[in-house]
Amino acid sequence: MPSKIVRDSIHGSIKIPDWCIRIVDSPQFQRLRRIKQLGFASLVYPGANHTRFEHSLGVMHIVLNLAGRMDCSERERREYIVAALIHDIAHAPFSHSSENLLRKYLRFRHENIVPVVKGSEIEDVLKDEGLRLNKIAKIIEGHNIVSGDIDADRMDYLVRDSHYTGVAYGVFDLMRLIERIKFRGVEPIIDGRALKAAESLLISRYMMFPIVYNHHVCRIAKKMYEKALERCVEDRLIEPKDLLKMDDYDIVHFLRGAGGYPEEIMNRLDNRKLFKRAIYVSRSRIHVEKIDAKRAEAELAEDAGVDEKTVIVDVQEEDEAKELRALVEIDGELRKLEEVSPLVRSLKEAEKELMMIGVYTVEEQVEKVAKAAVRFFDIRETIQKRLDEVLPIW
Amino acid sequence: MPSKIVRDSIHGSIKIPDWCIRIVDSPQFQRLRRIKQLGFASLVYPGANHTRFEHSLGVMHIVLNLAGRMDCSERERREYIVAALIHDIAHAPFSHSSENLLRKYLRFRHENIVPVVKGSEIEDVLKDEGLRLNKIAKIIEGHNIVSGDIDADRMDYLVRDSHYTGVAYGVFDLMRLIERIKFRGVEPIIDGRALKAAESLLISRYMMFPIVYNHHVCRIAKKMYEKALERCVEDRLIEPKDLLKMDDYDIVHFLRGAGGYPEEIMNRLDNRKLFKRAIYVSRSRIHVEKIDAKRAEAELAEDAGVDEKTVIVDVQEEDEAKELRALVEIDGELRKLEEVSPLVRSLKEAEKELMMIGVYTVEEQVEKVAKAAVRFFDIRETIQKRLDEVLPIW
Amino acid sequence: MPSKIVRDSIHGSIKIPDWCIRIVDSPQFQRLRRIKQLGFASLVYPGANHTRFEHSLGVMHIVLNLAGRMDCSERERREYIVAALIHDIAHAPFSHSSENLLRKYLRFRHENIVPVVKGSEIEDVLKDEGLRLNKIAKIIEGHNIVSGDIDADRMDYLVRDSHYTGVAYGVFDLMRLIERIKFRGVEPIIDGRALKAAESLLISRYMMFPIVYNHHVCRIAKKMYEKALERCVEDRLIEPKDLLKMDDYDIVHFLRGAGGYPEEIMNRLDNRKLFKRAIYVSRSRIHVEKIDAKRAEAELAEDAGVDEKTVIVDVQEEDEAKELRALVEIDGELRKLEEVSPLVRSLKEAEKELMMIGVYTVEEQVEKVAKAAVRFFDIRETIQKRLDEVLPIW
Amino acid sequence: MPSKIVRDSIHGSIKIPDWCIRIVDSPQFQRLRRIKQLGFASLVYPGANHTRFEHSLGVMHIVLNLAGRMDCSERERREYIVAALIHDIAHAPFSHSSENLLRKYLRFRHENIVPVVKGSEIEDVLKDEGLRLNKIAKIIEGHNIVSGDIDADRMDYLVRDSHYTGVAYGVFDLMRLIERIKFRGVEPIIDGRALKAAESLLISRYMMFPIVYNHHVCRIAKKMYEKALERCVEDRLIEPKDLLKMDDYDIVHFLRGAGGYPEEIMNRLDNRKLFKRAIYVSRSRIHVEKIDAKRAEAELAEDAGVDEKTVIVDVQEEDEAKELRALVEIDGELRKLEEVSPLVRSLKEAEKELMMIGVYTVEEQVEKVAKAAVRFFDIRETIQKRLDEVLPIW
Repeated sequence: MPSKIVRDSIHGSIKIPDWCIRIVDSPQFQRLRRIKQLGFASLVYPGANHTRFEHSLGVMHIVLNLAGRMDCSERERREYIVAALIHDIAHAPFSHSSENLLRKYLRFRHENIVPVVKGSEIEDVLKDEGLRLNKIAKIIEGHNIVSGDIDADRMDYLVRDSHYTGVAYGVFDLMRLIERIKFRGVEPIIDGRALKAAESLLISRYMMFPIVYNHHVCRIAKKMYEKALERCVEDRLIEPKDLLKMDDYDIVHFLRGAGGYPEEIMNRLDNRKLFKRAIYVSRSRIHVEKIDAKRAEAELAEDAGVDEKTVIVDVQEEDEAKELRALVEIDGELRKLEEVSPLVRSLKEAEKELMMIGVYTVEEQVEKVAKAAVRFFDIRETIQKRLDEVLPIW
Repeated sequence: MPSKIVRDSIHGSIKIPDWCIRIVDSPQFQRLRRIKQLGFASLVYPGANHTRFEHSLGVMHIVLNLAGRMDCSERERREYIVAALIHDIAHAPFSHSSENLLRKYLRFRHENIVPVVKGSEIEDVLKDEGLRLNKIAKIIEGHNIVSGDIDADRMDYLVRDSHYTGVAYGVFDLMRLIERIKFRGVEPIIDGRALKAAESLLISRYMMFPIVYNHHVCRIAKKMYEKALERCVEDRLIEPKDLLKMDDYDIVHFLRGAGGYPEEIMNRLDNRKLFKRAIYVSRSRIHVEKIDAKRAEAELAEDAGVDEKTVIVDVQEEDEAKELRALVEIDGELRKLEEVSPLVRSLKEAEKELMMIGVYTVEEQVEKVAKAAVRFFDIRETIQKRLDEVLPIW
Repeated sequence: MPSKIVRDSIHGSIKIPDWCIRIVDSPQFQRLRRIKQLGFASLVYPGANHTRFEHSLGVMHIVLNLAGRMDCSERERREYIVAALIHDIAHAPFSHSSENLLRKYLRFRHENIVPVVKGSEIEDVLKDEGLRLNKIAKIIEGHNIVSGDIDADRMDYLVRDSHYTGVAYGVFDLMRLIERIKFRGVEPIIDGRALKAAESLLISRYMMFPIVYNHHVCRIAKKMYEKALERCVEDRLIEPKDLLKMDDYDIVHFLRGAGGYPEEIMNRLDNRKLFKRAIYVSRSRIHVEKIDAKRAEAELAEDAGVDEKTVIVDVQEEDEAKELRALVEIDGELRKLEEVSPLVRSLKEAEKELMMIGVYTVEEQVEKVAKAAVRFFDIRETIQKRLDEVLPIW
Repeated sequence: MPSKIVRDSIHGSIKIPDWCIRIVDSPQFQRLRRIKQLGFASLVYPGANHTRFEHSLGVMHIVLNLAGRMDCSERERREYIVAALIHDIAHAPFSHSSENLLRKYLRFRHENIVPVVKGSEIEDVLKDEGLRLNKIAKIIEGHNIVSGDIDADRMDYLVRDSHYTGVAYGVFDLMRLIERIKFRGVEPIIDGRALKAAESLLISRYMMFPIVYNHHVCRIAKKMYEKALERCVEDRLIEPKDLLKMDDYDIVHFLRGAGGYPEEIMNRLDNRKLFKRAIYVSRSRIHVEKIDAKRAEAELAEDAGVDEKTVIVDVQEEDEAKELRALVEIDGELRKLEEVSPLVRSLKEAEKELMMIGVYTVEEQVEKVAKAAVRFFDIRETIQKRLDEVLPIW
């Protein structure tokens, strides 16, 4: 079987090596065609309909490009390439939108690809090619080139999400960065001459978070979907583990026919009749230690005298605190990126400011719920005002 | 209600006038978010997941820009703008992929928006704003600015489809063209100084057809879907008119659960196990006068000794022969574009070469069916070879 | 000496192989930094200040990319690369603007690089590297990959000129085309699957000619410069062969201080007080067989009663009729591009219409000279009007 | 006189209002066509040949766009537009490269346009149009929209310099920023919703400084030119004030014929035989209080035992400390940008790290001079090493 070339808006052409084609052709991988990369972001950015499928090819493309420089066996090199290709294969419908649920009920994270690959055609291919699933799984869970600070995953999604949303901020100096990554064994090292390019990737990420990934409307839609789905799980209408086999079409259809609250929420999502913000403040200014969102929703609803189902408390979490472990080589010495770059340090600080707490409800109840939320989080009127400033308003 | 700004990958920002927002917010228009602009093209170009929603906003954006120069009443101007906005509101799931069916059973074309608007919230808005549905419908069916040779519809979709497929050919000099269109009353006239820009739009179209719109894999998927759907109609599983209320999610779910042949085809589409080409030749070289695809499928299948359901005959039709009616003003005189531009004339000729006849079947039967097709269409071996040359091979 | 990477607006990064660096560093090659790629085009497109230097690197970049596929010795491969790099080394100031003069007085064409290389540092490098100057010279004069229809020179300049002028038409599918060129020995063959990409390059060229290269203001400035320079040669103020050592700075300074007519013209160029068109008609409609521009200027001036120095007759020449010799491989057979593509054939025809005859003069005399020109070229009033239509008006 | 449209690579089309055309056509403004925007940056980025002419049109284009929202008389509005158009009219050849000299000998800054405009055709136009030169001069010297933190000048040059150098970092969300600037009277206010867009402009600037504007090779070439020119002034070969009438062609020719040291330096610039870095360290780590570059050169040369003319000490100055005075409106309240944005504060800090001290000399003397410099600036070996890290290496 000859290699295949796929046209890609970001990288121009992506060449799929012959031995990867069977993986791409497997139903498990084809399913990614029907899982939107950014979940409900298309409700804000109508162009954001791109899928995990093209993103996965993109990450493979970057790693394929880098792998030639790795100092390792050909088998290992291929394991890195497969890791890149299937790193998102365990995503549930609407990508991150289903993730909290899987985490809560199954303690499952999408980086855990083993259950999806086991018994699938992909496993057959791995066997035929003499590649180790365990090794691949380990790369996906923690190797710097697939999942670090300056990794192929980020390199692809920042530029790609920027392209499809029409937001300029995801552009960074991808080509220069790729050119300047070297390897010690299989560990990526950024050449000092690409320091600015590495900074530019982190800046992109800093900009894309409030503007796209955590845009309040995206958060609201995601949380509505999550709440509807959770209700279905509680009512035994669906098994969490089934999500791993479903695509966006399945879950939309399921919710449209689920009756009651979940169906109502799905109708709202279809017709873009979304909840609105009651409050939206930077987490850094709230003095409550740990927040149990579910309990908060109940208390808030009671205080406001409204139905609990119409209140959502959204506590944004910092990206699982990856320490900034990317390494830079300067004058032959290895240094941590954040040690070398004052800008990177300050971005890390500034990012904290961007994590928000939002309380959302149906339009008619906004005022009532806002008041209850101010009480619940003990927000002083003046602070509420001041905090609004750092709003990632669009 | 203030105007709204939507971020768009093509035009940067699109401003939705306040009085249009209710139309955009209606369920009928929101449904366009869930209808892919290019049907199954994402099976070839993984980025082609964009929808009729953003395209419709784009066309409105262009007409809004042009409408200021029209010499007409404010009411009429708004009717043009609404026409642009809702010109695709009567598209069925997967856009053009469902169209033949509607045409066959209902003699319905998607330009016929009246049945979809009647009784909907959009009709209410039109009444409130004092705009005439009939007038709008007429604009959509035939006015040069929404549906001509050099119209806002094409201007938007060529650039947009190019952006999302990653194919360079859709780029043309949009800005210059828009700048140089003037109006006599409400009729668009191309300023002679934009002659090259107008040519560039028609060249784009000429290039995009074989590369994207009529790419053989897109045709195959479309025809498979059509055949599956037709079977459902014949078996009374679905009413053709219901398609106008459905979105891509509905129809995919419907077919996945339809049982038998339609379900099997849907599985093939999901997993990209598509039919293959048995033959694929330029129509201009086939001497059969008129081809009844359905009868041809039956005869071919019989001759090849295979199941009729596994054979598809695809006769590409030239775009409903719009005469090239765009007008150009040169030295104060109006001339037809094709009169003034030898390039445009030759494109018109060259386009005929691009219309193909394809016969598709499951992989295992390709050879058998190919032979039967050669007999059926009376293709000489040598011609078949020669014809292959003009293949829009990708 | 390690290889060097140069940042390029078109190709991103250009890697200069170590053994080429001495050529790039030679004064002969550095001189190209100071020769504008498009001569006086910046008077129309203010961004068009790019130089032969970056274009030359760009062409080398493309050939370097292609050369790996050539079936030849390493020495030969390097000769192709050097040929690409220095193919424009014999350009005189303002590129093509000085060329007619060199042709007239020295029968010299810029493809003739030998006299410039002989005795220069570049010759030393060639000797040290064991490369043959004669072979390189021959490649530049006629090899399909450096100077054919679908050659690296065109591939670079169309995209580059488009980027710097801001004119969209030079964009074509560069990446696809490069990917799909193969070689039989050292002869480039276009893979049939890149037929559309090859067509797109020729379309670009067709569009760029009237809009940029032959824009009437570019022609006027070029012709003014030519006439001023010719006067200097006649008056023995300058030796034609000296032009090959000069750059734009030298010649501008020379003309600014040349006194009399040449200085006056240079002032006009500096201050953009250009001649205007008296007539401008398509060559295809003029019935005069062969036109001696110089004699025509004299006769026209006399008839109009004006100074001969203020009249310019500009007869645009078709690009030295390269037959369309690019080869395409389809089903293993080689075919001429124009045989396979009806569009290419029609472009060839349409291009003839674009060659114009212009008569230019100072603003005050336009009317007088126009009348004389109508008489001289025997243009019927009505035809003059009709002919104006195909004006490549901007 | 009708308005004119100029094609621009950045803004697409720039419309020059009819009443501005005479200014654009004046010899003083046409001279900007022949002054490179980035001086000698083309020695690093071969595409950086763009000029003050197109940049000036670009700034005018932006202000023209914004001026409609200003609350002022039509006369004042036009004064802002003219200010934008001619804000760089007092630049000397190679832009900033000549500036230190003018400052030293004439205490002249290029923002001081009055001496250039006085007595020129531009002054006539201003009189005819009833516009006040003094007012215009004052706007150029200090108004936020032409010369602030978030001003039209920066908006244009960042994107433009990025386009021509091929460096990605200059891209920011120009369109969004322009859309979101409002005015209180004539004072620009950034709408809070464009906070990220404003940040993105400052990030661009932060990235472009080390990568382009202060790239060490650009610095070296600039300083060589400065030193050669200063010698000419000292030797009375040229009057500093004459620079304001000269263009790049004049000064290149002048230096090529100046004899002795200046001519030698010009030859080096022509042939890119540049000085090299002996040391290059961040200013923030040097403990010497104030540095007199000229005295330092003398002492260093003596210590190293080399000719003073071959040593350059380059002390990079922070951009004349504009306090970050841009105002942002949030919840109806005006706040300083840096107060609202932690990122902006940290950029301000990080920028200090980017200011370098360089000592340059001819290749053969690098080692000797480096040692003397380490002594002179009292740099500890270890520190020198550490400091190298923040090198804006390319």
